[in-house]
Amino acid sequence: MDSPSLAVSPHVLPGPLGTPAGLSPYTLVIQHAAQVLTLAGGPTDRPLAGDALGNWAVIEDGYVACLGPTIVAVGRMSELTPARIGPGTRLINATGCVVMPGVVECHTHLVFGGNRASEFERKLRGESYLDILAGGGGILSTVRATRAASEAELLANALQHLEGFRRYGVTTLEAKSGYGLDRDTELRLVRVAREAGHQQPVRVVPTFLGAHVVPPEFKAAGPRAYVDFILREVLPDLKGQVAFVDVFCEEGAFPLAVARYYLEQARKMGFRLKIHAEQLHDLGGCEMAASLGALSVDHCDYLTPAAAARLGQQSQGRTVAVLLPLVPLFLRQEKFAAGREFIDAGLPVALSTDFNPGSCPSKNVWLSLSVACLKMGFTPKEAVAAVTLNAAWAIGQQRNCGSLEPGKQADVLVLRRASIAEIPYWLGENPVRDVVIGGCLC
Amino acid sequence: MDSPSLAVSPHVLPGPLGTPAGLSPYTLVIQHAAQVLTLAGGPTDRPLAGDALGNWAVIEDGYVACLGPTIVAVGRMSELTPARIGPGTRLINATGCVVMPGVVECHTHLVFGGNRASEFERKLRGESYLDILAGGGGILSTVRATRAASEAELLANALQHLEGFRRYGVTTLEAKSGYGLDRDTELRLVRVAREAGHQQPVRVVPTFLGAHVVPPEFKAAGPRAYVDFILREVLPDLKGQVAFVDVFCEEGAFPLAVARYYLEQARKMGFRLKIHAEQLHDLGGCEMAASLGALSVDHCDYLTPAAAARLGQQSQGRTVAVLLPLVPLFLRQEKFAAGREFIDAGLPVALSTDFNPGSCPSKNVWLSLSVACLKMGFTPKEAVAAVTLNAAWAIGQQRNCGSLEPGKQADVLVLRRASIAEIPYWLGENPVRDVVIGGCLC
Ligand SMILES: [Zn+2]
Ligand SMILES: [Zn+2]
Repeated sequence: MDSPSLAVSPHVLPGPLGTPAGLSPYTLVIQHAAQVLTLAGGPTDRPLAGDALGNWAVIEDGYVACLGPTIVAVGRMSELTPARIGPGTRLINATGCVVMPGVVECHTHLVFGGNRASEFERKLRGESYLDILAGGGGILSTVRATRAASEAELLANALQHLEGFRRYGVTTLEAKSGYGLDRDTELRLVRVAREAGHQQPVRVVPTFLGAHVVPPEFKAAGPRAYVDFILREVLPDLKGQVAFVDVFCEEGAFPLAVARYYLEQARKMGFRLKIHAEQLHDLGGCEMAASLGALSVDHCDYLTPAAAARLGQQSQGRTVAVLLPLVPLFLRQEKFAAGREFIDAGLPVALSTDFNPGSCPSKNVWLSLSVACLKMGFTPKEAVAAVTLNAAWAIGQQRNCGSLEPGKQADVLVLRRASIAEIPYWLGENPVRDVVIGGCLC
Repeated sequence: MDSPSLAVSPHVLPGPLGTPAGLSPYTLVIQHAAQVLTLAGGPTDRPLAGDALGNWAVIEDGYVACLGPTIVAVGRMSELTPARIGPGTRLINATGCVVMPGVVECHTHLVFGGNRASEFERKLRGESYLDILAGGGGILSTVRATRAASEAELLANALQHLEGFRRYGVTTLEAKSGYGLDRDTELRLVRVAREAGHQQPVRVVPTFLGAHVVPPEFKAAGPRAYVDFILREVLPDLKGQVAFVDVFCEEGAFPLAVARYYLEQARKMGFRLKIHAEQLHDLGGCEMAASLGALSVDHCDYLTPAAAARLGQQSQGRTVAVLLPLVPLFLRQEKFAAGREFIDAGLPVALSTDFNPGSCPSKNVWLSLSVACLKMGFTPKEAVAAVTLNAAWAIGQQRNCGSLEPGKQADVLVLRRASIAEIPYWLGENPVRDVVIGGCLC
């Protein structure tokens, strides 16, 4: 039987037991929200940029209705159809609360062994990141701990961190490999990230960062030999397993020319591209990666506003600059990415923690919002858009999440906050009251 | 009947039903801790200072045993007396965890109406703290909201914030008045703080900060006339209600001479003294207050290391400098108190959030530890001592709390952390698993 309602509303999705969704009761309604931050109505072909980043509409006294795993309606309470609330409809009262899309964490290094708390103490005594790296510490000490860990241990750690992220309202999370730096361990890290995604509700999007640093085994042969090894021995096995290939373009890691070569080759193999660039020096990595169509360029602390403007134009606003404000805070750098200037130049920006054991042992994405406001000049609305819709664009998930729109996954947060400005204002506190993933209250 | 054991151990306290405690079973044992941070063995006549701040012993594989509301034994697992674990003993397994004293929050402005999230947005656009204050915003907007709030509303807000603090492991908290600035409202704020302390487990120590800023009613008459009003009309009613009198010595608030006069008079009335000083300018408030025997001098961002050294000597190490690292972070100041230099100069230091709606809307005391390490040069051990034992000294509670020693209140935390260094390392995350207050798991 055809459902006539399917023709009149693109918002209506098939209901249970084949009944037209237009008639079936909602499974979940989050109602009476002080503010619903829909992030809806943006362009469909690119992330939010410029004024649009902070200019999206807010629904006062609103609701979000779900049917199974999917959002089917969003609006004012006065527009809620009472007939679609049945005895089986779960109701969540959001009186006095902000309701917003689940946070999309678009840059994490989720899977690793050990931690670097003792190195943190050394840094407090004044040793620099690159000094520690050169002395066999830094990333390489995590590589040793990660290689030594069993797959079960790595999975247990990842699951524990995912639980922490979920408490902070993260509903989709990108997880990079990069602490293995050999074939077996890198493949294991991708497997663990995928398996962790299956074992709990947070959606995990794996990225391959085999080109994180040059491993000890390739110290003599050099960065180019190492990426050739990856291209030959590792990447072919990752087709269909990861969508993105990432590289750390930095002094002590991969020089610009090697990073370019590697990304070009990876693109030929069908992978989409990301880069860690302009974190500690201005090497031109962001513009290079954008010229290859990279989905995101990450860090950007040393990206100049002029280069940001060129990058935005060149990529036609499709490359997202992922800014990571907790990293300079943790590394005791004075220099933070020029977020305000990037936004004013029209470059789409996203925010993330960069969760990792060396330069940002923090899952507190809300702290990154506050620091983005305090140190990068974001407004509260821009910061919210940067961890939801634009973060979804940064990992190619914009059709699934990042906004509250009919047809998208029912990934929704209820915050103990009455207004958007309060989100970054209560510094470092977790505002999350309820987390809904795929229509289920976690 | 005399208990012979009382003569041999100062640690033995009377047990239930009059049985000697040496024979009665423990009511609570926290056991198998990876590390027990006792903070024990410090001087009994002054806070920890200099090397002693970071040099206290840590017990590996340890336990803490309580009898009712009191700690009765702390040691290695191998020293735990099995005979004192009975069928009624509650056991908490702290395997892999750090166990430490409850956090003592020694500087908060707990009770206020409204919030200043919209002012936060103005600050992000570049308006300064003093500009906003001069334009009737800042503290004065909270004063209006606080005067307009009912006592029940203020109490409900305070209780909600205390619950938040408790989740962060705060077991004793100092709460300042100072958003009333008239007789009735200031007395109400002290009442609310005391009542909030009675209605939930966190212990509340009220401080009178009527001299926070000059209220509009005294704008023409000036600061001296306002403090004379307080001394005449308000303070006499607060004897026995608050232990401490505090004043904000700063441009736009109370000048040095008025602050000195006020503190001298308050001291004559029998109050102990505190001061907010050297937050935004070096006016000499810290040294002045220390010369009057102030228990603490708070903020100190502009206190010079030379003045800190003089202050430490002059007060014979009895005045604690309470440093508030989240305030400059939130106010976007580059200048943080010179914590490292203060410690090296022998000045006792404590750490706190300064929780308040204007310059630090954060109850995340763990974030203040991390920022103290990153921006003030604290080591992790120093930071832990600064929010426990030295914070207890800063509010005269050193005999009750701040360390895990027989005879002290059983205020104990179990952290999801395996070592001290991990406490500030996991940036902005709440490490607390269990909170015990007065021997009860909250
Ligand atoms: Zn990264
Ligand atoms: Zn204060």
